Amino acid sequence: MESHKVRVGITHGDINGIGYEIIFKTFAEPAMLELCTPVVYGSPKVAAYHRKAIDSSVTFNTVETAGDAESGKLNLVECFSEEVKIDFGRATLESGRAAFLSLERAVADYKAGLIDVIVTAPINKNDIQSEHFHFPGHTEYFEDRVGNGGKALMILANSLMRIALATMHMPLRGVAQALTVDGLVSKLRIFHHSLHADFGISLPRIAVLALNPHASDGGLLGNEEADVIAPAVKAANEAGIPCFGPYAADGFFGAGLYRRFDGVLAMYHDQGLAPFKALSMDDGINFTAGLPLVRTSPDHGTAYDIAGQGCASENSFRQAVYSAIDIWRNRKADVEAHANPLRRQSNTDRKDDEARKKTSQSAEE
Amino acid sequence: MESHKVRVGITHGDINGIGYEIIFKTFAEPAMLELCTPVVYGSPKVAAYHRKAIDSSVTFNTVETAGDAESGKLNLVECFSEEVKIDFGRATLESGRAAFLSLERAVADYKAGLIDVIVTAPINKNDIQSEHFHFPGHTEYFEDRVGNGGKALMILANSLMRIALATMHMPLRGVAQALTVDGLVSKLRIFHHSLHADFGISLPRIAVLALNPHASDGGLLGNEEADVIAPAVKAANEAGIPCFGPYAADGFFGAGLYRRFDGVLAMYHDQGLAPFKALSMDDGINFTAGLPLVRTSPDHGTAYDIAGQGCASENSFRQAVYSAIDIWRNRKADVEAHANPLRRQSNTDRKDDEARKKTSQSAEE
Repeated sequence: MESHKVRVGITHGDINGIGYEIIFKTFAEPAMLELCTPVVYGSPKVAAYHRKAIDSSVTFNTVETAGDAESGKLNLVECFSEEVKIDFGRATLESGRAAFLSLERAVADYKAGLIDVIVTAPINKNDIQSEHFHFPGHTEYFEDRVGNGGKALMILANSLMRIALATMHMPLRGVAQALTVDGLVSKLRIFHHSLHADFGISLPRIAVLALNPHASDGGLLGNEEADVIAPAVKAANEAGIPCFGPYAADGFFGAGLYRRFDGVLAMYHDQGLAPFKALSMDDGINFTAGLPLVRTSPDHGTAYDIAGQGCASENSFRQAVYSAIDIWRNRKADVEAHANPLRRQSNTDRKDDEARKKTSQSAEE
Repeated sequence: MESHKVRVGITHGDINGIGYEIIFKTFAEPAMLELCTPVVYGSPKVAAYHRKAIDSSVTFNTVETAGDAESGKLNLVECFSEEVKIDFGRATLESGRAAFLSLERAVADYKAGLIDVIVTAPINKNDIQSEHFHFPGHTEYFEDRVGNGGKALMILANSLMRIALATMHMPLRGVAQALTVDGLVSKLRIFHHSLHADFGISLPRIAVLALNPHASDGGLLGNEEADVIAPAVKAANEAGIPCFGPYAADGFFGAGLYRRFDGVLAMYHDQGLAPFKALSMDDGINFTAGLPLVRTSPDHGTAYDIAGQGCASENSFRQAVYSAIDIWRNRKADVEAHANPLRRQSNTDRKDDEARKKTSQSAEE
């Protein structure tokens, strides 16, 4: 087993939301500190304010840099020193800026090799926007910062299913036009690789959802199934990616077909996330696949309506920490498994092998 | 209580699907015949074929017209006499035509006052298309045939929620353009009235879903929330229809907010139906609101993959029969309750009343 404790960078998210609360609650459990070395990117002052508000007894260890993080402690790196006003449940410029500074520092430390993975607490998509941050969400931000030109894929996972999104944070109006055969094949390729290398599934099978109601009922309700999705499924299969569909979304979830696949590719945000969250038992996580960085998050938002009250559930955040660690380890194992591949046998060897096989079969007959 | 047995017209749907199987299984229970007088619109030959295939012992009573239907029996009206080939699990021209003839006869008998409600077994949307049937589904067909110019609203109901669709069977590409303030207010009006008169809820509250992911995150991901949906919610409230939203669909279902409302208006087919079916425990039904006719159906399709095998569940169909009866009775009770309204008091009376109220308050002080 893994002896090195995974260094988990944690961004504090929107400081007027439930970020600190779910972080504190997660690491209130001593076993979590056995599993990993957490490094929170935030502010000791803000953390102290939240700690008091929710009456938590969790202590944190303020460090200069992630390099000073101590095992067995909840480490906290100060990302900004100025006073910021906490205003529970409200989107403010200050809370957006605080969220942004936390992200930037975590990314810098990841690039410097000081942390292994990043788990993000929820941000408010509006107040974080600035000249430096103009992304519709975390996923697009990380794609830009650490993607090396590669494309990110948003995967939601819970105990029932793993669901990836072909299109992410875009108006519904633009979804149909955004789907292309090449684009879908590219998403299927990333998904397939991630299911294999990140989730440790040897031969993953992917279900592809339709875009239109009833999968267009043979063309009565749209043409994207015939023109785009079915050709993409065909092309992906030809490229060695086992996938099936397109399936009408309502029937797919109604019949529980997700149980028969290792992954589900939804065509757009709500098609995947509404049923996913409807079925989640507080255990859903969001994982950004396709990047060198392992980044996870809980599947919920800032929960402004209950911020500062101490009643937020940390389950999804804890699962996000577990998942980041699991995925990091799976990737490492996958790399190690492929580090010294068996040499391909020469033709001569193959013939020998077939001859042996025949002999053996004869003997058995 | 209601003494008159409700006469339930039942269309046999696609004859290569599970229609007859779920009809037989539903009426295998003697209590169902206590509750209503079923009249199946189909073919004795086709029925006999299915009966044998699934090894059912349910007997049916073939009648010339619905007027001859007998209480306590599963009556069957012959809608066509020619031989038709049953080909389980396949969409054929013959099966489409048989489904269509059943619908037409049921509608004619409903108009003639021979049946009270209609419950439809599933059709195949493709094979039923002809010069006489060019609808994307049952809902649009009934709107045309018995709507008297009124608009139908598709409502899905199970034990957890009632969900209506602002747009129905249309390509996803066209959904955003199809939403208008007036259109949504009209749907909300029908929904509100149906929740009241059909489902017997005195002061129904409706949640309205957003169109875009995250309800557009304040405009970052689309403008329909601000331009169309929020104004429609406002206008509906001003017209005396209590409704709330728009809510981001994923968070709405994730947090189980449907439990707090009597109805949910989804913007498009899969947004409503995928989470609805994901959460249905085999008990979902489809009701066509807004029409003089009460029409329900199970929430599943022809189930070609298991047709003729005897393993289909009739639960949803049975619920559809129950619901049709309930709604028919609720409507009757609603009409009766409003048949002799209290006369509006004259101004003089009102003043008297206010004076009395004041006296009474003073007395209590």
